[in-house]
Amino acid sequence: MADIRTQSLKKPVDVAEYLFHRLHEAGVRSVHGVPGDYNLVALDYLPGCGLNWVGSINELNAAYAADGYARVKKISALITTFGVGELSAINGIAGAFSEMIPVVHIVGCPSTLSQRNGMLLHHTLGNGDFNVFANMNASISVNVAKLNHPSEVADQIDHALRECQLQSRPVYIMLPTDMVQAKIEGARLDKPIDLTEPSNEPEKEDYVVDVVLKYLRAAKRPIILADACAIRHRVLNEVHDLVEKTNLPVFVTPMGKSAVNETHPNYGGVYAGDGSHPDVKEAVSAADLIITIGALKSDFNTSGFTYRTSQLNTIDLHSDHCIVRYSVYPSVRMRGVLRKVINQVSASDLAVHPSPTVSTQVNETDDGSQTITQAWLWPRVGHFLKAKDIVVTETGTANFGIWDTKFPEGVTALSQVLWGSIGWSVGACQGAALAAKDLGDRRRTILFVGDGSFQLTAQELSTMIRQGLKPIIFVICNEGFTIERFIHGMEATYNDISQWDFKALVDVFGGSKTSRTFTVKTKDELNNLLTDDAFNAAECLQFVELYMPKEDAPRALVMTAEASAKNNAQRE
Amino acid sequence: MADIRTQSLKKPVDVAEYLFHRLHEAGVRSVHGVPGDYNLVALDYLPGCGLNWVGSINELNAAYAADGYARVKKISALITTFGVGELSAINGIAGAFSEMIPVVHIVGCPSTLSQRNGMLLHHTLGNGDFNVFANMNASISVNVAKLNHPSEVADQIDHALRECQLQSRPVYIMLPTDMVQAKIEGARLDKPIDLTEPSNEPEKEDYVVDVVLKYLRAAKRPIILADACAIRHRVLNEVHDLVEKTNLPVFVTPMGKSAVNETHPNYGGVYAGDGSHPDVKEAVSAADLIITIGALKSDFNTSGFTYRTSQLNTIDLHSDHCIVRYSVYPSVRMRGVLRKVINQVSASDLAVHPSPTVSTQVNETDDGSQTITQAWLWPRVGHFLKAKDIVVTETGTANFGIWDTKFPEGVTALSQVLWGSIGWSVGACQGAALAAKDLGDRRRTILFVGDGSFQLTAQELSTMIRQGLKPIIFVICNEGFTIERFIHGMEATYNDISQWDFKALVDVFGGSKTSRTFTVKTKDELNNLLTDDAFNAAECLQFVELYMPKEDAPRALVMTAEASAKNNAQRE
Repeated sequence: MADIRTQSLKKPVDVAEYLFHRLHEAGVRSVHGVPGDYNLVALDYLPGCGLNWVGSINELNAAYAADGYARVKKISALITTFGVGELSAINGIAGAFSEMIPVVHIVGCPSTLSQRNGMLLHHTLGNGDFNVFANMNASISVNVAKLNHPSEVADQIDHALRECQLQSRPVYIMLPTDMVQAKIEGARLDKPIDLTEPSNEPEKEDYVVDVVLKYLRAAKRPIILADACAIRHRVLNEVHDLVEKTNLPVFVTPMGKSAVNETHPNYGGVYAGDGSHPDVKEAVSAADLIITIGALKSDFNTSGFTYRTSQLNTIDLHSDHCIVRYSVYPSVRMRGVLRKVINQVSASDLAVHPSPTVSTQVNETDDGSQTITQAWLWPRVGHFLKAKDIVVTETGTANFGIWDTKFPEGVTALSQVLWGSIGWSVGACQGAALAAKDLGDRRRTILFVGDGSFQLTAQELSTMIRQGLKPIIFVICNEGFTIERFIHGMEATYNDISQWDFKALVDVFGGSKTSRTFTVKTKDELNNLLTDDAFNAAECLQFVELYMPKEDAPRALVMTAEASAKNNAQRE
Repeated sequence: MADIRTQSLKKPVDVAEYLFHRLHEAGVRSVHGVPGDYNLVALDYLPGCGLNWVGSINELNAAYAADGYARVKKISALITTFGVGELSAINGIAGAFSEMIPVVHIVGCPSTLSQRNGMLLHHTLGNGDFNVFANMNASISVNVAKLNHPSEVADQIDHALRECQLQSRPVYIMLPTDMVQAKIEGARLDKPIDLTEPSNEPEKEDYVVDVVLKYLRAAKRPIILADACAIRHRVLNEVHDLVEKTNLPVFVTPMGKSAVNETHPNYGGVYAGDGSHPDVKEAVSAADLIITIGALKSDFNTSGFTYRTSQLNTIDLHSDHCIVRYSVYPSVRMRGVLRKVINQVSASDLAVHPSPTVSTQVNETDDGSQTITQAWLWPRVGHFLKAKDIVVTETGTANFGIWDTKFPEGVTALSQVLWGSIGWSVGACQGAALAAKDLGDRRRTILFVGDGSFQLTAQELSTMIRQGLKPIIFVICNEGFTIERFIHGMEATYNDISQWDFKALVDVFGGSKTSRTFTVKTKDELNNLLTDDAFNAAECLQFVELYMPKEDAPRALVMTAEASAKNNAQRE
């Protein structure tokens, strides 16, 4: 049977080759993962398909790295092995699902024959159930493809990649060992997969556009608020054009940070309810119309649900529906609506008020001491950053502190405000730096991570060294889990961590000759480092221990943590 | 309502207190986990309940440690936080399910109110579904308890702990933040939970006993084979008594290793089909009746399904059923059957043949060179081990090599032959060493782990240092994933790893003053170390880099890897 089928193929290719060609076509250049016996044969196909294998130190790190890669390169791939490997990665994939990151997760699994026979293989639960891990993944993936029949494989792969891209969320592909080299029709590869977003139904779209324009023209103080999904669903050009065309003030949420050029005169700052800068809070409160683009109103994105805005004053544009006040328009995608609004609107028809001025408040936050405080650090970082830098911040003080950093143009900010898995940023930094390298960009990748979080995934530093990446890594040494201290247990030992000789890890991981390490304990030391030309040039991996006080936290973190503690304790 | 209910309680206790008292009663003394904002308040209750908090470096390490702890202390507990924490641990829990290890996994989760309101909280998928992670865990846990109603909590906890113990597998407990301090009836705590195994139905049990005795007395060459579930379901006393009473030869499988006193004259060696020592293979092949106790015939436990035994010659005794030839006896537990067989059998009624002699073949395997070969190492380790040592071996060369190590009496061997998650052993070593400490034993804990595997979970070394544990850690430095090389890709770069300065990690993690490190590259160096009194005394953490050739593997591994590669490729 198999032979007859193969003979009828015009351009037979092996399944692994087909899959990897499609990944390459979708934009993947480096593939993350960890080798395991059920995926080894597949890995042999990577170089021939123009793909670089990144062997991470473990699967969770690899998943985080794939997440970071996809945030920069718009798609990524992760290869793990059945059971042990995929489950080690599952928190990373769940994070990508939660945060809407397109990761193609390929799991090398036992042969279709072993599965059918329910064999008692290693990496199984010993119960003959080979679907249990796929079932787990089904709730955190927008598509599950089990490549069990050669005749269906190409369709399954193309469909999975399309769903991954369109929904901007992970897909899960099970690749049995006996299918890796099965032959399928390669002629299909001559035609690229259609990854374009479907258009809206024109009449419906026009209706929504009219409604939006009506409210926009009637408003006395309209503003624009860009959030996470504007980034995830790739409408940043539309956001930019809308600001240019309307001349309206534009704000970003914490998760929307870097969606907007922060040097643009219309940029008004970070809005997150009560945690916002007073000027921003005032400006947003005064608005009688807020156009939110890709809103995601989670607790940590809103300083604990402290928006004081009314839905009667709100137009919410989403990737797959729009809401104007309380009218819901299902299946109307924001991209088409935005494009038409941009075409039809004119600033002269609108009530345009100036945005608050966003300044980098380094002098205002200098307490005169040499202590590197959270209040002073984050504005200071704004002067250090350069156009097009990639800035990765970890859950904890960094994710809240970065609200106070004014970005140069073209910065890409990576954070995991919704999922908030500590340790994520170290893997993500590797992936982001590699994506920039794969893009041929000389963009710097800069990581801010707390010491507690860094420990969880520290060994991904080894992969960065091995791959010749050149990130700048700031480990905030403040003796433990500061965000947790502010939620509960300021003095509790469970919020303490082991004190490591962090920068010695660079040597342990073989980076002593190719990397530089620094210890910074005062404002002067930090100022000197941040203004040093060689440091700024970022021509090798640079690792900075940044000592800060244990019980110091950004204002917004303190407020959000209080709200969290209250919510945790609340009963009916 | 809540107040009236509370007033009716005789001895009100908080839910967390009840839970932790029950854990203590079941035998837990140290609780593994990582703090997270949904579990912080619960952690405050640990010291008051006599429980030590072990903050691991990450959740997967913590889960592995809980697994190791339970293998020594017979039960363990793990506390993680909702979503991010529990999913990071899930591979460790799946391993405990697969390998039948009783771990109580407690997940601090958002309040019942937040759940009911479907709040868009951090650590969620953003879809208001608070059951998705519990559903994932349901397939790798024998009980899922959501502690949502104070009136049900005590029953739920008692039931979960009983199932954990009886089925020797993980249970999953969701503890919402608002329930931690809810009051429940503490008077129940005066009566311990019944954790005893139910008896068999007497008539049914007698029937099986008669059948077993009939075949046993009729057999010309009967033997006993102890496997994984004899250890997991705690019938080692019965195995011992059966050997004493019958005087039959007894063998163990790789997963059954340490089930039997290897210095006993009836001990015949490790049986794993074609991968066995020739004498063992011959003895088992010649048997016309094999009583298997707790058999688990997985690929890696049988050298790739190479048993040449017939079911017609087999009596399989399991934790919840028995099989004699092809007759299945459901719900007949082996413990009762074994106890009655022991009482009724007499060696004089049986055809007793001597066991093969198991010798420690150090001289036979010495190739005269100074190279530390796999063939030489593992027998050599047999002379180093002392009675009651705890020996942890990692998936890879160690798990196969240990077949050739003859144990002194009372050794406890830990390995993960079925699940086979690399990196497991480092966490498990921490848990095992801590369990021995909690038991007040001065047993040594000795770990053998490959360099590739060690990297995945290396930072758990930090927890060992922080907890003042004193394991002996051998990291086999052989440049990567040797087991994978033998399955596929002997020269493939994906099987290579970064070369770390492994022993420098001890310093990085703050252990320089309390630990000793060694580098061993020759047989003489190893002999010197293994005969050094101070080293043997194990009075501090000792870390050994053990250099071995890259392409060398134990004989049994080579054979099993070949079988795996063949099975992976096989199509219909």
